[in-house]
Amino acid sequence: MTRTRIHNLSISLDGFACGEGQSAEAPMGHAGHRLHEWMIATRFGAPIMGLSGGTAGLDDAFAQQHEPGIGAEIMGSNKFGPPGWQDDPEWKGWWGENPPFHTPTFVLTHRPRTSIEMAGGTTFHFLDVSPVKALDLAREAAGGRDVRIGGGATMARDFIAAGLVDHIHLVQVPIVLGRGVRLWDGLEGMEGDYSVEAVSAPSGVTHLTFTRQSSLVGLC
Amino acid sequence: MTRTRIHNLSISLDGFACGEGQSAEAPMGHAGHRLHEWMIATRFGAPIMGLSGGTAGLDDAFAQQHEPGIGAEIMGSNKFGPPGWQDDPEWKGWWGENPPFHTPTFVLTHRPRTSIEMAGGTTFHFLDVSPVKALDLAREAAGGRDVRIGGGATMARDFIAAGLVDHIHLVQVPIVLGRGVRLWDGLEGMEGDYSVEAVSAPSGVTHLTFTRQSSLVGLC
Repeated sequence: MTRTRIHNLSISLDGFACGEGQSAEAPMGHAGHRLHEWMIATRFGAPIMGLSGGTAGLDDAFAQQHEPGIGAEIMGSNKFGPPGWQDDPEWKGWWGENPPFHTPTFVLTHRPRTSIEMAGGTTFHFLDVSPVKALDLAREAAGGRDVRIGGGATMARDFIAAGLVDHIHLVQVPIVLGRGVRLWDGLEGMEGDYSVEAVSAPSGVTHLTFTRQSSLVGLC
Repeated sequence: MTRTRIHNLSISLDGFACGEGQSAEAPMGHAGHRLHEWMIATRFGAPIMGLSGGTAGLDDAFAQQHEPGIGAEIMGSNKFGPPGWQDDPEWKGWWGENPPFHTPTFVLTHRPRTSIEMAGGTTFHFLDVSPVKALDLAREAAGGRDVRIGGGATMARDFIAAGLVDHIHLVQVPIVLGRGVRLWDGLEGMEGDYSVEAVSAPSGVTHLTFTRQSSLVGLC
């Protein structure tokens, strides 16, 4: 049975996964890099920023789970580009010619366009459909592997609220952002569907993992 | 130099320190006991609920810090009683004849009344003053010991926002309450004044401690 998974979704203490005022110059709004410094410091995250090296401890062990076993990603419109990217026919995402997805990647938008094939195995498809329908299509494209729910916070929240996510990995960063896009709104009681584990890392962040109850293995 | 301290302030993942719908029957609103189960399970917390025994591990080590070195407490109106307690001249708090404070205890309310001397060293004083003025009075009463900022969330937030709190111990419980009184509102950037530490406990909660930068000891 394949799973739908969220990985490395960073939030502030007050639950914001993105700051206020997103733009081409400030993809995370007033949060800047603060929500992702923990990841940039790891072997997983350093290359994404064009750096080499990085730590190989707890933070990296979690971060590396982002890739294995994934056959497709679904992302929200706000992850693919800054506000207004739909008006730019040349926009191909933030990530250059070889995006770090390497699978079919479905972008949810009310203004779909023709698919874009990138280097390294990433093909962007654009969909104006419900979460359930998007997941159907992504599962089919994933060829028996798992589907990653890529965020941002708004679409992650929508998929969680619809009961469509089996594994959620959040990273709580010890800052109070005050403004932005809050993950938790509308998710009252969600812990009832999951086994929840928290582990604090020496870097100062706390990793929260939610495993859907029905995914747990019975031993007897 | 004495300090002002917050201890054992439990919050949900989404930052609520109290549920919605507080009443005499439901002091924590729809949250019930869920924010404090971690504490009730400890040697510190069990006796408060009339139980014996309890764990003596990490959760208890944090919980026990509530008492030593405290010479006075300031609490908000919502901690002292259910909505409307000001209309009941016989109301003496939730805690029976021997409340667990054992020091002068200042209750912030817009409708002050005569002080009440309880058994065990607790005397309730009622004040309609600003946080700064309340802290002045509590410091004077504390006789050289520290002042505890007792909560609830609204007054804790006011005192933190006013820069009046040196030590903050929060306990994040892995539930999403969805509604209630949120601690974080208005505290954007507060981490800049503090050294922050997070440690997850085997019970599933995560202890967050904020130590004011100016309280840190220089070693050279």
